[in-house]
Amino acid sequence: MEKILMTPGPTTVPERVLRKMAEPVIHHRTKEFSEIFGEFSERLKYVFQTQNSVLTFPAAGTGGLESAIVNMFSEEDRILVVCTGVFGERFAEIGRIFKLKVDTINIPWGNCVTVEQIKEKFNENEYKGLIVTHNETSTAIVNPIKEIGEFMKEEEALFIVDSVSGLGGLDIQMDNWNIDVLITASQKALMAPPGLAFVAVSEKGWESANKSNLPKFYWDYKKARKVLENKNPQTPYTPAVSLILGTNEALKMIEEEGLSNVFKRHELLAEKLRKETKTMGLEIFTNANCLSNNLTAYTIEQEGRAAAIKSRMEKEFNIVIAGGQAHLKGKMIRIGHMGYVTEEMIERTVAALKQCL
Amino acid sequence: MEKILMTPGPTTVPERVLRKMAEPVIHHRTKEFSEIFGEFSERLKYVFQTQNSVLTFPAAGTGGLESAIVNMFSEEDRILVVCTGVFGERFAEIGRIFKLKVDTINIPWGNCVTVEQIKEKFNENEYKGLIVTHNETSTAIVNPIKEIGEFMKEEEALFIVDSVSGLGGLDIQMDNWNIDVLITASQKALMAPPGLAFVAVSEKGWESANKSNLPKFYWDYKKARKVLENKNPQTPYTPAVSLILGTNEALKMIEEEGLSNVFKRHELLAEKLRKETKTMGLEIFTNANCLSNNLTAYTIEQEGRAAAIKSRMEKEFNIVIAGGQAHLKGKMIRIGHMGYVTEEMIERTVAALKQCL
Repeated sequence: MEKILMTPGPTTVPERVLRKMAEPVIHHRTKEFSEIFGEFSERLKYVFQTQNSVLTFPAAGTGGLESAIVNMFSEEDRILVVCTGVFGERFAEIGRIFKLKVDTINIPWGNCVTVEQIKEKFNENEYKGLIVTHNETSTAIVNPIKEIGEFMKEEEALFIVDSVSGLGGLDIQMDNWNIDVLITASQKALMAPPGLAFVAVSEKGWESANKSNLPKFYWDYKKARKVLENKNPQTPYTPAVSLILGTNEALKMIEEEGLSNVFKRHELLAEKLRKETKTMGLEIFTNANCLSNNLTAYTIEQEGRAAAIKSRMEKEFNIVIAGGQAHLKGKMIRIGHMGYVTEEMIERTVAALKQCL
Repeated sequence: MEKILMTPGPTTVPERVLRKMAEPVIHHRTKEFSEIFGEFSERLKYVFQTQNSVLTFPAAGTGGLESAIVNMFSEEDRILVVCTGVFGERFAEIGRIFKLKVDTINIPWGNCVTVEQIKEKFNENEYKGLIVTHNETSTAIVNPIKEIGEFMKEEEALFIVDSVSGLGGLDIQMDNWNIDVLITASQKALMAPPGLAFVAVSEKGWESANKSNLPKFYWDYKKARKVLENKNPQTPYTPAVSLILGTNEALKMIEEEGLSNVFKRHELLAEKLRKETKTMGLEIFTNANCLSNNLTAYTIEQEGRAAAIKSRMEKEFNIVIAGGQAHLKGKMIRIGHMGYVTEEMIERTVAALKQCL
């Protein structure tokens, strides 16, 4: 039995993508690379559902988060960060480190934020930006980005969305939902190995970028945009060519399947998993009104049991799943079902789980 | 004829490394990854010739340069940057952007700095750090790092070396040569695809890191060190697993050949190329006292000729070489001979060049 990663990222990479990773490295300062990179960037626009250019950085997703802070804001700017788990908290911490005034909405883990909660804070304070995690992997919740975007349309503040573990599995429409900065990474629902962060910026976002006084060099969006929006698209510094070739292949697969079919598949597989695990008596951690189609988190109360299940799943069944993070370490298992996931993989996971329980 | 990259990076990646790139992605929060990452980090110490931990970042080499600035210094710190070409200038620019006081020594292109020139500046000013490019790819020079290190031993200032295009082809002994921060990347003499930056820090460097007040999150050395120097070595954020597997294989190849043999091979092949091209009447751009064994730059005066040679080398002979950078664009060709380079590849390049001239 082949090993599969039923984790919230990195996820299983399809053979077709892996084969691309093994192709000889193309020198990046060539027409050959520019052509591929141009097509690649167009494919990114498709999955971002945007007309904006999508910038590519050799980086972990966290680099993408940092880049949004240093490009969009200035010291002392006040921003609001919605914390629904580990990744919202990380974004807030980055803001504080770069000397922004960071207010947070702290949602009890397992729940999502409501537009009302955000409105309330906006009534109390003037913010330069709102940051929301789309899909919070530590708690397996999805925040209502579309609804928040409707509210943000009338606000001056930037709407920044971390969709590192959402985009490519869950619908997220950058342009229609009024998102100003949208961030994701290669190794989650985009089915490629880790190492690339992607960021798109709206026109409103670019205006802020012009005013930002925070120091930046590697993450400089304006420099990246300038060489990308060129007859021969380029990156400011050496791109991670192999990862671009691999991710490009993964994006082709998404194109072939069609984005709406991809979302539908994620929905069906998530429902299938939850239905099957319910009959096993597994308790879902996440509030029913904000379940994610990209992963599911289960509460495992009994001391040591989560670790035992995780370990047995890997050793006996060659299926890697994740445990809990932060204060939920040892009290949770998380099953990722995003990216390259098939019905068969869900069935294999369910059958293995049955054995382990 | 297989395409070869006789460029100063990315360089040709051996088949053995490419195959590793196509292996299924390992989940990074596992013992399996920690074991590989631990071994990998030990191999990095071998090529860095150091006892210090070597940190790995998913990033281009430029990210490595930025990381050294934000971890080692504070606003208003005065540093001295030796500019022998494009990459020295880039490092100086990063320093200025992060609000350091940056003095430079501007060496005419094609020459290296002397210890005397550095001493002179140190007599005039107090510096917190000295930054030198080891191998400057834009001019194909090597700076005398060992000699500078002997001088720096008695100084309080940090000695920071950008060896992005040097390490792995040219001897560089971090510990013996008193280097405090040594930076390189995966895609040059280390024979792997681009996308990883590596940085090692001396004890003196770590003391500075404790005092630095520049904001950092993604590049935070202390955080990276803490999780690396652990029973189960880890990275703070998702590592670029495939690139680590690939580079690990490349490092094994260096180990098998032996570092001193690798340096000797680079020396012999560089001499062979220069000898052969001399008989063709090609004029070497670089001053004879600072030639690099990793690449050779030739002056091509006649308008349009450099581009024509470059283009014909690629189209007819499947050999990618590089042109000039900055003001030398169109007036130079550069041939990389670092990393995975064999006598046969040099011969093939020479034969093709003969046809093109």
